[in-house]
Amino acid sequence: MAWQHRHLLDIEGLDEADIDTVLERAERGLATDALADRTVVNLFFEASTRTRTSFEIAAKRHGAHVVNVSSSFSSATKGETLLDTARNIEAMNVDAIVLRHASSGAPHFLAKHLPCSIVNAGDGTHEHPTQALLDAFTIKKKKGRLDGLVVVICGDIAHSRVARSNAQLLGKKGAEVRLCGPRTMLPRNPEALGPTVKLFPRLEQALEGADVVMMLRIQQERLVGAMMSTTREYSRTFGLSPAMLARAKPDAIVMHPGPINRGVEMPAGVADGPQSVILDQVEAGVAVRAAVLDLVIGASAS
Amino acid sequence: MAWQHRHLLDIEGLDEADIDTVLERAERGLATDALADRTVVNLFFEASTRTRTSFEIAAKRHGAHVVNVSSSFSSATKGETLLDTARNIEAMNVDAIVLRHASSGAPHFLAKHLPCSIVNAGDGTHEHPTQALLDAFTIKKKKGRLDGLVVVICGDIAHSRVARSNAQLLGKKGAEVRLCGPRTMLPRNPEALGPTVKLFPRLEQALEGADVVMMLRIQQERLVGAMMSTTREYSRTFGLSPAMLARAKPDAIVMHPGPINRGVEMPAGVADGPQSVILDQVEAGVAVRAAVLDLVIGASAS
Amino acid sequence: MAWQHRHLLDIEGLDEADIDTVLERAERGLATDALADRTVVNLFFEASTRTRTSFEIAAKRHGAHVVNVSSSFSSATKGETLLDTARNIEAMNVDAIVLRHASSGAPHFLAKHLPCSIVNAGDGTHEHPTQALLDAFTIKKKKGRLDGLVVVICGDIAHSRVARSNAQLLGKKGAEVRLCGPRTMLPRNPEALGPTVKLFPRLEQALEGADVVMMLRIQQERLVGAMMSTTREYSRTFGLSPAMLARAKPDAIVMHPGPINRGVEMPAGVADGPQSVILDQVEAGVAVRAAVLDLVIGASAS
Repeated sequence: MAWQHRHLLDIEGLDEADIDTVLERAERGLATDALADRTVVNLFFEASTRTRTSFEIAAKRHGAHVVNVSSSFSSATKGETLLDTARNIEAMNVDAIVLRHASSGAPHFLAKHLPCSIVNAGDGTHEHPTQALLDAFTIKKKKGRLDGLVVVICGDIAHSRVARSNAQLLGKKGAEVRLCGPRTMLPRNPEALGPTVKLFPRLEQALEGADVVMMLRIQQERLVGAMMSTTREYSRTFGLSPAMLARAKPDAIVMHPGPINRGVEMPAGVADGPQSVILDQVEAGVAVRAAVLDLVIGASAS
Repeated sequence: MAWQHRHLLDIEGLDEADIDTVLERAERGLATDALADRTVVNLFFEASTRTRTSFEIAAKRHGAHVVNVSSSFSSATKGETLLDTARNIEAMNVDAIVLRHASSGAPHFLAKHLPCSIVNAGDGTHEHPTQALLDAFTIKKKKGRLDGLVVVICGDIAHSRVARSNAQLLGKKGAEVRLCGPRTMLPRNPEALGPTVKLFPRLEQALEGADVVMMLRIQQERLVGAMMSTTREYSRTFGLSPAMLARAKPDAIVMHPGPINRGVEMPAGVADGPQSVILDQVEAGVAVRAAVLDLVIGASAS
Repeated sequence: MAWQHRHLLDIEGLDEADIDTVLERAERGLATDALADRTVVNLFFEASTRTRTSFEIAAKRHGAHVVNVSSSFSSATKGETLLDTARNIEAMNVDAIVLRHASSGAPHFLAKHLPCSIVNAGDGTHEHPTQALLDAFTIKKKKGRLDGLVVVICGDIAHSRVARSNAQLLGKKGAEVRLCGPRTMLPRNPEALGPTVKLFPRLEQALEGADVVMMLRIQQERLVGAMMSTTREYSRTFGLSPAMLARAKPDAIVMHPGPINRGVEMPAGVADGPQSVILDQVEAGVAVRAAVLDLVIGASAS
């Protein structure tokens, strides 16, 4: 097996074989004692129940000791630096720190200074690699492959770590990635996300021939800069209505990293409709995160 | 064994045999691995350390993986609906969600839409079934039986899920239930709680011949509507002073679901006195909740 | 083995043999099932991620069920007393309560009223016994002994439970303890902390011949009373600069209970320098707390 990484920091640092290794491990599943006697700390400086819970269940199901540390309790409030907090945690002989942080690059910074494994659970506007891996797992399960697929990612691309990680992973696996959103929310250098990435200012056009439609959560406070005064206005142009979805392939699947603003990114009928795989994504999250933990700190990690 | 329920939503939906099954299972105890490989999520939208801790200990002692999700961390703050939050948790292949919610009927709503087991840990002013079951367990342990007993429940009956669940359970098991409190705090349709339920506007009368006296926690903000300006005034009329308690049977037991307002519902001398079984209730809580989890998701659940 | 205590309340109540017993147990290590089937509740009325996490990891690694209860969730907010909260937790057949509380004497109060073991994780300005034990463990590991060493403790001694516990432990083990800080921060009755305790108003003098330099975290709000308007002013007089540290023995070790105010108690260069054992202290914390839990509730506890 090709896996050589002590950390999972981003998709950028993974090659195609690495991605396959994670997906295969997640598909195969782990023994219930694969993480026995390992200690995993969820160090979350931003609230995220679903991601923290997903990692917590993934680790506990395979025998790890899990400790949750959230910023509101941490001595971050006492002025301690991120590095001091993490060093202290690591000094307790922790095997992996799962880090969620508002600053892009925070996990890379820790990885440079700490001997334990760092798993990036979302850093600023940079990356959210396990989200991209679970999305890939879900797509592959539904479509049988990633290469050659047309994947639309719609929303506030410029500020979305989910979009960045997904665009890169999908590009590496040979999918065509179409990024769509209000002009102010599109990235300035899309080519940095991979050679197969294209920008689409109109969702109607992006959807032509699409196999996968990934809608991102919109932050209402960002709409002002996009010259849209309400989520309703956003929804009319970039929401995935049934009529809009009909422009994609008939068997296109609908994804969302959650939590959904029902009625904004898509109406309830689409979120809960036959093409939605949103809950499959959540289920995949536990399997993929268990696989990642196993690869970096598990019994089979070298 | 007669147990046929995938959920524990309320006492209303249980018959006498169901109640006996829970109490017997709690009495007998569970193997330490009865819940092995099960995942239980405590989803609490209202703070309640004692109930959450009780379920957490009950589940962990029998091998379950337990994850706590409280509203302050949950994406409820991001505008996500209860159903979306719960669906996401369930999608992680959770076996049971233990739900505490301010809205009456919330657990029933989830039970209709989710494939996992739902255990009601208190919903609005509706029911708190595990509280009634642990109270019944405690009474039976002290009195040897439930049928034929005279049980007084005193306080803000109209808004109390504890009173509603207890009144129904005790009625089903053949006890006489006397509900007592300020007129504005008595239920309008007491007959809905069972044929053996009677209203008593004065505690002195309710206590005549009582075997069990269950005092409810009073919410100070509700006293205004009851034409009482202070807890002191409430205490004088509906508090369980030693003199008041002397009106019950000499071997009457004193109960309280906690947390007690010492000096309001009863003075410290009664709360800690020889007739008090308040801590027995807490101890029973862990046994009863373990039994409930075992019945709905344990090794012996069909 | 001499250990006869059901609780760990303070250093004051331990004799030399007790201290040795803890240190030896920590050195030897515990079996992974030493705390199997034990339930430990971390009851924290003050936020302290590092101490809570340290106890949590110590307990989980040896098989205990661990439940965290923090004040912000507890019914302390509903007006319940400490004793009621603790009694309720204990009634769930908890083996040990690890208590952090702002009131001096809170753990002793609980120990008097509860049948379970109480471990003091810091009470007001009184004691923090596991901190002193982990400090002693660290010193012994680095210096091979405690007796005969010269140990400087510098900072707000009068309000520091860390200083009080350390001064007593080190005195019992035959070390010379030098307490140093602004006059208003020195204790009025240092002789109460042991016969080997001496006061030093100037750090330069305290450091002459020192083997160990223990710097305490300073609270900015206390500086006003010390006639110092800024942490910068404090740092100039009582900070451990490289020049200041050079006055101690060349092989002196630098300690800090954390979290450090970098640039105040000492510059980053000293905190992360070759003489610093600050992270060794953190590592020792887990081993020492596991040993303490084993002694009071473990398989070998009588």
